[in-house]
Amino acid sequence: MNLTWVNGKYLEDEKACLHVSDLAIQRGYGVFDFFAVTRPVPFFLKTADSQPGKPGKPFLLSSYLDRFFHSARGLNLEVPVSREELNRIIDEFIVKNNLKKHGIKLTLTGGYSEDGYQPVAPNMIIRAHELKIPTKEKYQQGFRVMTHEYQRSTPGYKSLDYRHAIALIPTLKERGLDDVLYCYHGIITEFPRSNFFMVDQNDRIVTPASHILEGITRKAVLRVARDHFEVQERDVFVDELINAKETFLTSSTKSIMPVTQIDGHNIGDGPGKITRKLSELLFELADDFEF
Amino acid sequence: MNLTWVNGKYLEDEKACLHVSDLAIQRGYGVFDFFAVTRPVPFFLKTADSQPGKPGKPFLLSSYLDRFFHSARGLNLEVPVSREELNRIIDEFIVKNNLKKHGIKLTLTGGYSEDGYQPVAPNMIIRAHELKIPTKEKYQQGFRVMTHEYQRSTPGYKSLDYRHAIALIPTLKERGLDDVLYCYHGIITEFPRSNFFMVDQNDRIVTPASHILEGITRKAVLRVARDHFEVQERDVFVDELINAKETFLTSSTKSIMPVTQIDGHNIGDGPGKITRKLSELLFELADDFEF
Repeated sequence: MNLTWVNGKYLEDEKACLHVSDLAIQRGYGVFDFFAVTRPVPFFLKTADSQPGKPGKPFLLSSYLDRFFHSARGLNLEVPVSREELNRIIDEFIVKNNLKKHGIKLTLTGGYSEDGYQPVAPNMIIRAHELKIPTKEKYQQGFRVMTHEYQRSTPGYKSLDYRHAIALIPTLKERGLDDVLYCYHGIITEFPRSNFFMVDQNDRIVTPASHILEGITRKAVLRVARDHFEVQERDVFVDELINAKETFLTSSTKSIMPVTQIDGHNIGDGPGKITRKLSELLFELADDFEF
Repeated sequence: MNLTWVNGKYLEDEKACLHVSDLAIQRGYGVFDFFAVTRPVPFFLKTADSQPGKPGKPFLLSSYLDRFFHSARGLNLEVPVSREELNRIIDEFIVKNNLKKHGIKLTLTGGYSEDGYQPVAPNMIIRAHELKIPTKEKYQQGFRVMTHEYQRSTPGYKSLDYRHAIALIPTLKERGLDDVLYCYHGIITEFPRSNFFMVDQNDRIVTPASHILEGITRKAVLRVARDHFEVQERDVFVDELINAKETFLTSSTKSIMPVTQIDGHNIGDGPGKITRKLSELLFELADDFEF
């Protein structure tokens, strides 16, 4: 894991640089996406690595690439390689770096903009990142979070805009919390890097429908949930949390993570029955499942 | 103009790079500021360059540095040099690059973040940019703009967050417009890179009071205006535009630029009398004026 792809060239990672005129550095302008190469096994299903020594296979790659191209279009950036070519490069990248339990991040920036404002030919980066899987202890304990009034503009594109969330990190640390749950005018939307789910008193799986980034793990959870539960995609009000039986978040890194406390109010007692059931169902979904 | 300062070292500009793990590239996280080295002379006062061959002197530097440190604190980033040291470096930077009619951009990013989310020791860049001064023709014509519903979060810090504005560039081009004027719930706030002013029917100078980045040129214009006009800093409603005698914008690059059309509605007939008067007063303000 030490080759990084920059604009068509493989570089030793420490040499993977962008000139300071890049529009990400000048104006935070760019999009990215991130997907796992071989999903982590949920700890309660822990088995021996089934394919030791073999490079991994990206989980739901097709959906991630759909979203990457969608984000690029949303910010008027042209991906400099075709979809077919990108698939080939990702395969090559995995083999060259012998990736097994990593994530791959695709980044596309506004390019080397002379006037520091107008996007030009984008710079593109493909880089491997260690997957920081939550521990068994963390899953058992669940996330403790606080709500926070904020709405991202155009959240449907996975842009580089995380300023608001990152500026809140010291507040979270001070309060011993794991994350912030955005809400706006009384309606819950999402976490900065994860989607929100609630199990209501009738065992319905409920998740916010709009003003969110539609996570690929969210989509996969909805898919597997529909076969076993009633599912609702709709506005979820902060006031409803008091009646939630279980809450959890979904993300590419964390898969499903129980959320056991919101604004000091405890929800359930550790990971709920349905949360665990969905974790299992999600893991059973084929790597190349097509929606 | 070819040396760029990166983390304490002067580099040939083409070698001024940041590693792709920088938090500006990963998450758009950072702040900056920009100030002119010797202000442009308004075209209607055009005289010979008063100090040919001598390096320039930054305009209102103290206010820009106040804001740069303020922005850094707001995003929990520590400027790696003291205020005193930064003053010295800027003087040195101007002499080394023999800058006369340029702008200087200070950028501070979230640093080389291993987990791609948490800020670490910041990277700092000092770079010279050509000042793109609006032409006489453009001043005479004035800017044509459209209003657009949007509110930046924490606009008081000069962060790298320009995604929303930059994504609108194609729309502006398509409509032959110069800029977008943000408003929110019927209240005008600011342009993405400039502040908004209106001259009302009673020759009062009116400018939005809150939910804006407080521009240094805005502050200077308010200062010189108070000696000659009644000044109001308050909420300005979109509905009031219909009664504006003159409108203009202020920015470090553009100084004062008339705005002669908003949403297809013409305001005045070219640069207004008071707009021109303020342009002159602003130019007379001493480089090192202290507020």
